[in-house]
Amino acid sequence: MSDIEIPESHPRYQSLLTRHRIEEGVEKGITSRQGLIAQGRGEAFDYLLGERTIPSADEAARAAAAHLLLADHPVISVNGNVAALCPGEIVELAAAVDADIEVNLFNRTDERMRAIVDHLRDHGADEVKGLTADGRIPGIDHERAKVDADGIGSADVVVVPLEDGDRAEALGAMDKVEIVVDLNPMSRSAQVATVPIVDNIVRAVPNITAHARDLRDAGATREELETIVVEFDADAALDAAERAIRAGTDDE
Amino acid sequence: MSDIEIPESHPRYQSLLTRHRIEEGVEKGITSRQGLIAQGRGEAFDYLLGERTIPSADEAARAAAAHLLLADHPVISVNGNVAALCPGEIVELAAAVDADIEVNLFNRTDERMRAIVDHLRDHGADEVKGLTADGRIPGIDHERAKVDADGIGSADVVVVPLEDGDRAEALGAMDKVEIVVDLNPMSRSAQVATVPIVDNIVRAVPNITAHARDLRDAGATREELETIVVEFDADAALDAAERAIRAGTDDE
Repeated sequence: MSDIEIPESHPRYQSLLTRHRIEEGVEKGITSRQGLIAQGRGEAFDYLLGERTIPSADEAARAAAAHLLLADHPVISVNGNVAALCPGEIVELAAAVDADIEVNLFNRTDERMRAIVDHLRDHGADEVKGLTADGRIPGIDHERAKVDADGIGSADVVVVPLEDGDRAEALGAMDKVEIVVDLNPMSRSAQVATVPIVDNIVRAVPNITAHARDLRDAGATREELETIVVEFDADAALDAAERAIRAGTDDE
Repeated sequence: MSDIEIPESHPRYQSLLTRHRIEEGVEKGITSRQGLIAQGRGEAFDYLLGERTIPSADEAARAAAAHLLLADHPVISVNGNVAALCPGEIVELAAAVDADIEVNLFNRTDERMRAIVDHLRDHGADEVKGLTADGRIPGIDHERAKVDADGIGSADVVVVPLEDGDRAEALGAMDKVEIVVDLNPMSRSAQVATVPIVDNIVRAVPNITAHARDLRDAGATREELETIVVEFDADAALDAAERAIRAGTDDE
């Protein structure tokens, strides 16, 4: 996992480990300054949430798994913080649902792109898309719009953890099923998502994988997966998350 | 103020300007990585607070001003984020209440100490303490404990904006009046403060200055200042702040 020495008994073990990974990401040229600030915002929301996966986030992760299993061409979008925080978990999710992985940066530089691709390969990724950048997301700035035409460009389901609001909105407008992981239920990314998962990415990504494996192992049919998809209520999930954050350590 | 071009009409003008100042702080060697993450945590709490000074924070700022006017030897402790976010405002507060300014870093390096001292001087500070480091705060780690004997070491009232919990606790144990600015009312620093001000530092510091000037201009007597100090209820202020954060944009 990581070479930092934090006793697992420490009450803030996971939070400190997560922060350590983000700082390592800076050393490796993966995480940006904006990424560090975003990490801090996430920490605050997670703290208010009680640093746990609330029931509505677990349901959202299950709906996300169903969408991914139903997809023709699912793609997982990875930015600097995602790569720093859970590279191995992203690779496992991609394998579990047969998805492509595409690096997609808000502050795109060739150097960071390559550092992230290498980091994902070090964690077991085979093919990593994003370097071709021959496609565009309509409606946003040229630099921000770059995607691979045979990756996010032609995906029917995209997982965009920790995505910026403008791009989340533009991707949604392309009629893709959008699965967002974001600790702020009031953020634009969470609001525009088909499936918003209000949870820490280090808990959410393995949780989607676990649900996908469970559904597959149980032999869930297309109809059953479609029922899970249809029954998921994004607005109710966002409301539940906001209530959990506002109410503190109580149940939703 | 700053050379970034953000239209003042932008709904998140102040938040973006603040973030820009923190990033400039990194360029100048003033702000640390931990400081960037802390900035993000603050942004999230401020967002939930409605990015405004709530009435209980205004009362706390008034109590802080009264404490500072009553003090024999008030000192304002400045770390990397404080220096990056409101250097001029710190210098004005120090002048208004005749306080010393002392640089006091959690991650202390000579280079950062000097960069911050220079930055404060560029913003009008005369004398800046912190480089002597011939005093110690009892009960914490050697490196973290360094202070100037004739600065924080002998202060009766200290303003410690954005202070780490361990040091806030240790300073409190030294029987100093401790004025903390922190956007998280549940943080240890806020909990141990004599006067916790749950507000963004870019609003809180000028607000303390304004209250100090008002009280002085109104010719407040020692008795009147002592009444303000005694009537301030830290626990009630923290409760009100937590309610405001949990309740969202409604009044306290």
